[in-house]
Amino acid sequence: MTLDGARNFKLTIAYDGTLFLGWQRQAIGPTIQQTLEDALAKLCGHEITVFASGRTDTGVHAQAQVVNFFTSSSRTPSELVKGGNAILPKTIAILSAQEAPEDFNARYSAKGKTYAYYYYAAKIRDPLLITRAWHVGPNLDWALMEENLSHLIGSRDFKSLASKGSETKSTIRTIWQAHITSREENIKKLTITGSGFLRHMVRTIAGTLHLIGRKRLSPDYLNLVLDSLDRAKAGPVAPPHGLYLEKVFYQPFSGQNDAP
Amino acid sequence: MTLDGARNFKLTIAYDGTLFLGWQRQAIGPTIQQTLEDALAKLCGHEITVFASGRTDTGVHAQAQVVNFFTSSSRTPSELVKGGNAILPKTIAILSAQEAPEDFNARYSAKGKTYAYYYYAAKIRDPLLITRAWHVGPNLDWALMEENLSHLIGSRDFKSLASKGSETKSTIRTIWQAHITSREENIKKLTITGSGFLRHMVRTIAGTLHLIGRKRLSPDYLNLVLDSLDRAKAGPVAPPHGLYLEKVFYQPFSGQNDAP
Repeated sequence: MTLDGARNFKLTIAYDGTLFLGWQRQAIGPTIQQTLEDALAKLCGHEITVFASGRTDTGVHAQAQVVNFFTSSSRTPSELVKGGNAILPKTIAILSAQEAPEDFNARYSAKGKTYAYYYYAAKIRDPLLITRAWHVGPNLDWALMEENLSHLIGSRDFKSLASKGSETKSTIRTIWQAHITSREENIKKLTITGSGFLRHMVRTIAGTLHLIGRKRLSPDYLNLVLDSLDRAKAGPVAPPHGLYLEKVFYQPFSGQNDAP
Repeated sequence: MTLDGARNFKLTIAYDGTLFLGWQRQAIGPTIQQTLEDALAKLCGHEITVFASGRTDTGVHAQAQVVNFFTSSSRTPSELVKGGNAILPKTIAILSAQEAPEDFNARYSAKGKTYAYYYYAAKIRDPLLITRAWHVGPNLDWALMEENLSHLIGSRDFKSLASKGSETKSTIRTIWQAHITSREENIKKLTITGSGFLRHMVRTIAGTLHLIGRKRLSPDYLNLVLDSLDRAKAGPVAPPHGLYLEKVFYQPFSGQNDAP
């Protein structure tokens, strides 16, 4: 949808996915897309359709999701940020706004993404992390899990690590970086950066790594799963509340900007 | 309330205060005390009264609140931890249990406490910190705030930094340590350790420091407030969701233990 003479805006947004039914508009409850479109429509005075870099599932968080939308209103980037944040519930925030070229599309212009997956490794749950990290408990072999990540690097067919229903036909993706780091005692962060990700791919990697860390599988199991091209060989999809969309990469462009 | 032949247990618990109406049992909604007492009663087979080191207000979190209770049941510390955590909602956790001397009382035996108060200093709110830190925005003079903390150290009359309704008559308390540290970009942590705290004392300190950081007051304002003994001179009570009860100190004792 392009409005005649409309400007295209790129927004970077953050959200707590806990209380939303994912990204995409649904009849049965609030979604990020619907809440954002409603706020922008109020601000711009006409119906708005936002296009995201990709969907996030129910419970998945975003620290820097990127969307674009067209508006015929005369709103400045700064007004979109301030006005949008005043209307939006506190569980969503517009971090920055920038006028973009007409052909900028949050999904198709994306060059890559970084996802983070958080595990909580203490014996007993932390009530403050219930909607923030997957409580996997102690005694996982984190070094072995880290070693397995090397198998992800490069261009590979990730068919075995994705759920059916991906939006694209090819299941080949390029992963540039994958690491596990420690944040505070007992909080482990899996970070993966790549050209793109299939449906449930990061969560399936997180779930398979968890079984490898429990030493229930062979030490280089992630490689065996990838080689097999067989989804049945992978571990379960890890729960959504540990997953964060951390960054989306684009070619830089110039345009009136309101970014901190 | 002491039951004949009953054993006294010390529990260390954590909770997300967001969805509770504070500590103390109330008719109008769920509280930590009520939820914990109900879970322990189910586990022990008789009514339970728990005594906390102190109350926490609605929205205030605890990383290590301490309580004690008496039971005539034969539950072991390990059963209390595992069984309690299975019954409790995920927003509360029992971190450890220990059999305590009969005269151990979570409130009166406490030798001191550490509270933390979290500020979020970015320009735009973080949806993932809405119930976790006070969003104060940028441009606060954190060094000046840290300097003011020196006035808290030692034994002083904290009357001007407390709300009415403290449980004790004397308003003299001893503060051993007070610091502001950085945790990640834009997350500032105020940590205060002392012999005890008056009602709303940490939140009033946090609220007064915030005004000092905004440079709306004289540079050593915290000292002036303390000297004045006048509550009207202090800043507003900072919001509850930034406050965490981090630790309660006791004389060690020996007793059957289930602590990670």
